Amino acid sequence: MSYPILLTPGPLTTSRRTKEAMLSDWGSWDASFNDVTASVCKDIVDIVNGQGTHVCVPMQGSGTFSVEAALGTLVPKTGKVLVPANGAYCQRIARILLYLNREAVILEHGEDEPANPDRIEAALKADPSITHVAVVHCETSAGILNPLHDIALVVARYHRRLIVDAMSSFAAIPIDLATTPIDALIAASGKCLEGVPGMGFVVVRQEVLESSSGQAHSLALDLHDQWAYMLKTGQWRYTPPTHVVAALRAALDQYHEEGGIAARSARYQKNCAALVAGMRTLGLRTYLSDDVQAPIIVTFHSPDHPNFQFVKLYEGVKAQGFILYPGKLTKIETFRVGCIGAIDTQHIFKAVEATERTLRDLGVLS
Amino acid sequence: MSYPILLTPGPLTTSRRTKEAMLSDWGSWDASFNDVTASVCKDIVDIVNGQGTHVCVPMQGSGTFSVEAALGTLVPKTGKVLVPANGAYCQRIARILLYLNREAVILEHGEDEPANPDRIEAALKADPSITHVAVVHCETSAGILNPLHDIALVVARYHRRLIVDAMSSFAAIPIDLATTPIDALIAASGKCLEGVPGMGFVVVRQEVLESSSGQAHSLALDLHDQWAYMLKTGQWRYTPPTHVVAALRAALDQYHEEGGIAARSARYQKNCAALVAGMRTLGLRTYLSDDVQAPIIVTFHSPDHPNFQFVKLYEGVKAQGFILYPGKLTKIETFRVGCIGAIDTQHIFKAVEATERTLRDLGVLS
Repeated sequence: MSYPILLTPGPLTTSRRTKEAMLSDWGSWDASFNDVTASVCKDIVDIVNGQGTHVCVPMQGSGTFSVEAALGTLVPKTGKVLVPANGAYCQRIARILLYLNREAVILEHGEDEPANPDRIEAALKADPSITHVAVVHCETSAGILNPLHDIALVVARYHRRLIVDAMSSFAAIPIDLATTPIDALIAASGKCLEGVPGMGFVVVRQEVLESSSGQAHSLALDLHDQWAYMLKTGQWRYTPPTHVVAALRAALDQYHEEGGIAARSARYQKNCAALVAGMRTLGLRTYLSDDVQAPIIVTFHSPDHPNFQFVKLYEGVKAQGFILYPGKLTKIETFRVGCIGAIDTQHIFKAVEATERTLRDLGVLS
Repeated sequence: MSYPILLTPGPLTTSRRTKEAMLSDWGSWDASFNDVTASVCKDIVDIVNGQGTHVCVPMQGSGTFSVEAALGTLVPKTGKVLVPANGAYCQRIARILLYLNREAVILEHGEDEPANPDRIEAALKADPSITHVAVVHCETSAGILNPLHDIALVVARYHRRLIVDAMSSFAAIPIDLATTPIDALIAASGKCLEGVPGMGFVVVRQEVLESSSGQAHSLALDLHDQWAYMLKTGQWRYTPPTHVVAALRAALDQYHEEGGIAARSARYQKNCAALVAGMRTLGLRTYLSDDVQAPIIVTFHSPDHPNFQFVKLYEGVKAQGFILYPGKLTKIETFRVGCIGAIDTQHIFKAVEATERTLRDLGVLS
């Protein structure tokens, strides 16, 4: 294991084998590379049980590029989108819709409060002109898990379309497209699939994608055009991040070898439990209650001590080989620690030790 | 040197050292990574002598994403863009402008004819409502070099703004922003800087960028927002392709060690001359006349022989370790061979030998 270990919500720590998959160059027009792309897309659809109904469209760029591609391609210019909001990634969806001139209705929640299916139902009932709902599955601003299945059932009952930012939950928390009605599920290479960052993807209902031709606001982010070209040629429309795709292929192999979603989910849950327990022994308090905490990233209150500064904790822990993450909440001082990536509880224990040592050095712990 | 060798216009063959730079994970919020980004941007501005006037804004995705980001951010909604067109990448600019609802005037040229400064001058004179000119420096559809300096002087004389797709020429053909007036110069990591694909960048005149706030059609591709955030935080706005950025840093180090633009340009010219001479000994004819041929990629006429099929040539040469590239011309049968990447004339000689062997096997050569 090479240091530093990234305890961040992506990019995250990847295995040596995943990184070594980047030691070859690939021709982006070549059949060997097209095979890699096709197998990656097939595996991604299978992970969420979308075979026969959904297709995977990969997209260059960060996950946000894929979120914008999905919104811009799938929401018609006359569409109106309900956004249950409990963090920065929900706000980012709202900001994208503003750029796209798509009408948006923001349903504000507290940052420690899961998106509420009853409130979503009331909003849909009250406004029949809402055509789409866009939700974030795991909102990493606080690390909260939104009740995706219940939300999807409400949205389907009211015959609206659902678009899901599953950036940090995909491959970590089970999603079953056969029983959870979703039009588009968006994630990226450098999250819980444990690849390196550089591409996103949208698992999208084929019939919805087929009817979205000509809607996109952007050529580069036109999901329909990307899909149609790939269907015809087997190739990406524009230069793919070949090494990133090859690393994702290797990461998917390791995902399967580990035991798929059950094993990965269990490992992350163990990491999360070890992290929370360990940090609590240091007197650190979690921001979320345990029942709404996703096993992805944990927000801790900053210690209420005059010697505490996050930047000093960060530097002290980094010197011992671990990278923490700053808080992203609007009103209170917090910091975050990720549980995901090619790491296990041994790394978590060491990260907690590094935190303890640094807090003692700072005089925050005595 | 690991095979296959990519004789393509990017992705291209990169050195082992460049690929090995991807064997670490980087925290995207971490100061160490911010330093890498800053040094990469500084070097890129220096390569085209833009210090003090221009800034480098990196952008996730392929080069096309950066082209769209530049056009969408820098051309106001009321702008009108002249596009001298002699290939597919010029047409792509026109297509982007169509998506953006920016008015475009296409100045058609033959695919074997460099963009003509006199015709550009006449077009600007005739239509004072044209605000911008967008040109492709090296149009790899045929491999032609457009006379950038002369075009830039014309555009400046008529007080219009110039945006340049320098995707395949950047770091291979000298460009001097101090003497060649250009607002925005766009290229990507996986071209003649010899990095891996996954990010583009725009070297943009700072005062023009500063006045472009609020113009972009896309959040992800908002060049001004990307720059403003990076200026404030040192970080990329959204998850950067960390490994791609690290590889580009290593590639830039090697660019400097090789001797910068003079050495790289000379190596590519030698590769190109060896390729053209070698292929001519096999009876293959270049599509372009030598005086307009850029030392980037060479288009050859397909041999006029009943046994010739590009796919068979491709497979035969691939089996010997080299990846060729298909033609992209609209009217005649051609194929292309790149001269760029971490290769020298030894590789070119071997690629010509592999071509000869395959053409003999196919019975095209006797």
